Amino acid sequence: MSEKLLQNIQNPNDLRKLHPEELPVLAKELRDFIIDVVSRKEGHLGASLGVIELTIALHYVFNTPEDLLVWDVGHQAYGHKILTGRKDVFHTNRQLHGISGFPKRSESIYDTFGVGHSSTAISAALGMALASNLKGETEKQHIAVIGDASIASGMAFEGLNHAGVTDANLLVILNDNAIGIDPSVGALKEYLTSVKAGKNPRENNIIKSLNFDYSGPIDGHDFEALLKELNRLKHKKGPKFLHVITTKGKGMQLAEEDQVKYHAPGKFNPETGEILPKSDEHLPPKFQDVFGLTLVELARQNEKIIGITPAMPTGSSMKFMMDAIPERAFDVGIAEQHAVTLSAGMATQGMVVFCNIYSTFLQRAYDQVIHDVALQNLPVIFCLDRAGLVGEDGATHHGVYDIAYLNCIPNMMICAPKDEVELRNILYTAQLGLPHPIAIRYPRGRGVLTNWQHPFERLEIGKAQMLQKGTETAVVSTGFIAHNITAALKDSQNPDRLSHYHFPFVKPLDTETLTAICKTHKHLITVEDGTVVGGFGSLVASFVTENNFPVSVKKLGVPDSFIEQGTVSEQQQICGIDVNSLRTIFSSR
Amino acid sequence: MSEKLLQNIQNPNDLRKLHPEELPVLAKELRDFIIDVVSRKEGHLGASLGVIELTIALHYVFNTPEDLLVWDVGHQAYGHKILTGRKDVFHTNRQLHGISGFPKRSESIYDTFGVGHSSTAISAALGMALASNLKGETEKQHIAVIGDASIASGMAFEGLNHAGVTDANLLVILNDNAIGIDPSVGALKEYLTSVKAGKNPRENNIIKSLNFDYSGPIDGHDFEALLKELNRLKHKKGPKFLHVITTKGKGMQLAEEDQVKYHAPGKFNPETGEILPKSDEHLPPKFQDVFGLTLVELARQNEKIIGITPAMPTGSSMKFMMDAIPERAFDVGIAEQHAVTLSAGMATQGMVVFCNIYSTFLQRAYDQVIHDVALQNLPVIFCLDRAGLVGEDGATHHGVYDIAYLNCIPNMMICAPKDEVELRNILYTAQLGLPHPIAIRYPRGRGVLTNWQHPFERLEIGKAQMLQKGTETAVVSTGFIAHNITAALKDSQNPDRLSHYHFPFVKPLDTETLTAICKTHKHLITVEDGTVVGGFGSLVASFVTENNFPVSVKKLGVPDSFIEQGTVSEQQQICGIDVNSLRTIFSSR
Repeated sequence: MSEKLLQNIQNPNDLRKLHPEELPVLAKELRDFIIDVVSRKEGHLGASLGVIELTIALHYVFNTPEDLLVWDVGHQAYGHKILTGRKDVFHTNRQLHGISGFPKRSESIYDTFGVGHSSTAISAALGMALASNLKGETEKQHIAVIGDASIASGMAFEGLNHAGVTDANLLVILNDNAIGIDPSVGALKEYLTSVKAGKNPRENNIIKSLNFDYSGPIDGHDFEALLKELNRLKHKKGPKFLHVITTKGKGMQLAEEDQVKYHAPGKFNPETGEILPKSDEHLPPKFQDVFGLTLVELARQNEKIIGITPAMPTGSSMKFMMDAIPERAFDVGIAEQHAVTLSAGMATQGMVVFCNIYSTFLQRAYDQVIHDVALQNLPVIFCLDRAGLVGEDGATHHGVYDIAYLNCIPNMMICAPKDEVELRNILYTAQLGLPHPIAIRYPRGRGVLTNWQHPFERLEIGKAQMLQKGTETAVVSTGFIAHNITAALKDSQNPDRLSHYHFPFVKPLDTETLTAICKTHKHLITVEDGTVVGGFGSLVASFVTENNFPVSVKKLGVPDSFIEQGTVSEQQQICGIDVNSLRTIFSSR
Repeated sequence: MSEKLLQNIQNPNDLRKLHPEELPVLAKELRDFIIDVVSRKEGHLGASLGVIELTIALHYVFNTPEDLLVWDVGHQAYGHKILTGRKDVFHTNRQLHGISGFPKRSESIYDTFGVGHSSTAISAALGMALASNLKGETEKQHIAVIGDASIASGMAFEGLNHAGVTDANLLVILNDNAIGIDPSVGALKEYLTSVKAGKNPRENNIIKSLNFDYSGPIDGHDFEALLKELNRLKHKKGPKFLHVITTKGKGMQLAEEDQVKYHAPGKFNPETGEILPKSDEHLPPKFQDVFGLTLVELARQNEKIIGITPAMPTGSSMKFMMDAIPERAFDVGIAEQHAVTLSAGMATQGMVVFCNIYSTFLQRAYDQVIHDVALQNLPVIFCLDRAGLVGEDGATHHGVYDIAYLNCIPNMMICAPKDEVELRNILYTAQLGLPHPIAIRYPRGRGVLTNWQHPFERLEIGKAQMLQKGTETAVVSTGFIAHNITAALKDSQNPDRLSHYHFPFVKPLDTETLTAICKTHKHLITVEDGTVVGGFGSLVASFVTENNFPVSVKKLGVPDSFIEQGTVSEQQQICGIDVNSLRTIFSSR
């Protein structure tokens, strides 16, 4: 592969020495470089391919890092990383001790704001711009690049609404490719589509109505158009908005054709784009598919069932229900707040709502869970996908706070099944009717059981299970981490001394079983795939002190710090909850 | 006062028997009734006065409760409550065991959705409308009444964005009075102002661009216009939007003239509207004013200081800084998510940001606290106003979860000062520069010290204080509740046996002092003005079990249930943390 130009670019200053005519060549090299590395190392592909020209043009025209550039979400920032001094380490992308898959302040001065969750860029860049004005740096530009799926999220609107009444040197660039991870949805998307098609009179412009200097739409793969418009905007004061049309996956035919699959395709052939087959037919299913398939099965029997996902139909496998029963399955876009309160509204009318939100994204709708669901005690069924440590996406995406932030809410029930069958059965049990809302948390990726499609069984609410009986120390766990404990206990040196209890329910807590455990053991070890601060272990510790049981409690789980990217098992090792670490701890008991 | 018509209305069916010509008379009676009761019993005034005609017209035209009516926020729903069977109990508004100040499902079939926090109505009503469609109830209408301040919040935009691509029988009514609690702000507000002034071509319409059938603006105090347009919309399918112009405080001259003051004016003369003087000159100041005045004092010395409030300049006393140093104090509207990430953006540029948000509303920006502030370890200073029990606003507004939901976030510091001087000193200390973000929580209302404007003193971070020394039981508290404990201990019967320690910092926890306490006492009693599930007491309990101290821990605070409206001391009594309850507990030790 030729990298004649790219190999000489250590930072944007080097880039700015090129002639404009060389930029398309550089774009080709940068694309090839990304395709080559991602084909072997995996990662997010399509988004970065789509903004190669835009990335080059931005660093070419603007004086980064003096001018401040914020990428929304950051899936699309690989080109940016490579052009800003991280070409030589790009092969460590998303690996433990490697570079993050997202822009990150501690990694580079060019990463002005850490991202991962969507729709933050406008607010962050506006904050920078207002600060610059106060510091008298009135020539500085502040640029937020945001996709059309992200800009439809409420938070982005809040940023626009504020920016429009300021004199901030803010340039919002809408990277409009009509897709997020899945295709964009909503009225704003339809509006943008009409703008692109030239069907909309230029006078009727939402963005202009919000006091922005609007320009575009322009072709985001046309350097001439990009350079011309960015050079014009560079010297304009106040809030500006540039509408850029791009193609996700640009430059790789298969990625352009199947944009959902090539968002993060895994390993593929860099020449053809063909995704390499995985030998996974005999592996246990993903928890996501257990959710998706079970939901369809249940919804076919129970016509009150509704499925809701905020922009994650593929990732959550809500897609199965959207395909099978489209009239009862809703993708509401990146709108977690709306998704939760919409669910509450439906629940008031007797619908049985499965609202599937990644654990980390339910943080976006925390108040709605408290104020609209729990306070009214509406039996919404929250399915918290990607609970626990999530691996390569890293610190921004872990679902490790959910037990702590949900447990303190009155009326909430919290369930963390230990395997696919238990997940399946709690989904079944929940739709039979519960007296409260429930959050069902399960991890990203595969479970442990290949044979999981048993007939449904009603799960006894709030009942713990003894998985192993011992005499001295009780290991008390919740969720899928039970599997690590079972493995660690299997070859520990003192099996008779150790019990293992699984608590599928964090709330209501099985205080009867817990009392029995405290009365028959000297020590407790709690294990969870979540924070030890305010999580399941804290709850157990509180129960022990309240009742004055003379037992010690050791809490294992995610410590009070942010865990960086790596594989899930590397992250478990950092937290001391992988099989080896547990085995060592158990063997000393 | 004449109530000829009103006295015969037990529910909207009675209302619908009136002739249209009688409605203005009813409006007058309803206004007078509200003014009379609120003048004596206190409550929210201006918002309800502004929608009297709209309220009557909605119940007159639509078939409530079959047609479903959702009030956003609910400040404006007094007329609705009175017309739907609660006239005779309206004098118990906001009192313990009385009716709630907000619509509430358990109170009436006409209250279709519980509200209190803003911007939920569109999502809730859309959920109801989609459910109706699925149930084949396609004639039903679903109405969300939302103010212009609320509709500018991101969540409302998410609801509109989704609704615009559905066939839901949703009618959004914009109650546009250009004010929330304080005057509305933002680009959307400027846009709406231009629409009202007729300056905006009707073709350029944000709402139409989102696929709504837009009509208006119409005069919301003109029955003829209201009835005509509502009757037309009643028979239209799909998403509709009616822009209604109203005047907050309508019909009471002083309330129209000073809309901020008459939002919730306290007691006043029902004839003249004159607010009754309070004999409060010698009372200790409100914590809000301690915050506001201290911030101005600090900001005059430190030019890096910035103040941010999401739509609560008056309530939080950020108004003082907005008046004194307007270029560094920002009201961003009802936009908590944006407020937090804007703060983070400013902090990246070295600004010292005081982001003041009511504790209950920080729930709206939970992810932004984790993902944009704490993960990047940006030293934003969160001032959590109205932390703890809030009194008459009731269950929707308590700030009792903050310790639990913030404590689990790595990097966060949490401070709960015991009085005005400590609040003042932590504000001072925070702006000197902290290594982490901090949340400073303090209650609604008055403190205990009239003489509080002492010279600033640097607070030692993470250091607890012994307030009383005893031998057997240590009372360990955080925040203003220390005052109740001091009072209860003063006349307990066994002062020598009881110690009292105040922990201004929940995080970092003073484990050194806590260790010393555990080594010198047999029992601990933790007290906090927040949930006992995952709060300060839980943290102490966890610490005790981790270290195997042979002490019992009794946790006092807000139990795991929603506490209804009442006075703060009634609510404290329910929770067992008022002075009397504490005295009883202490006396038995």
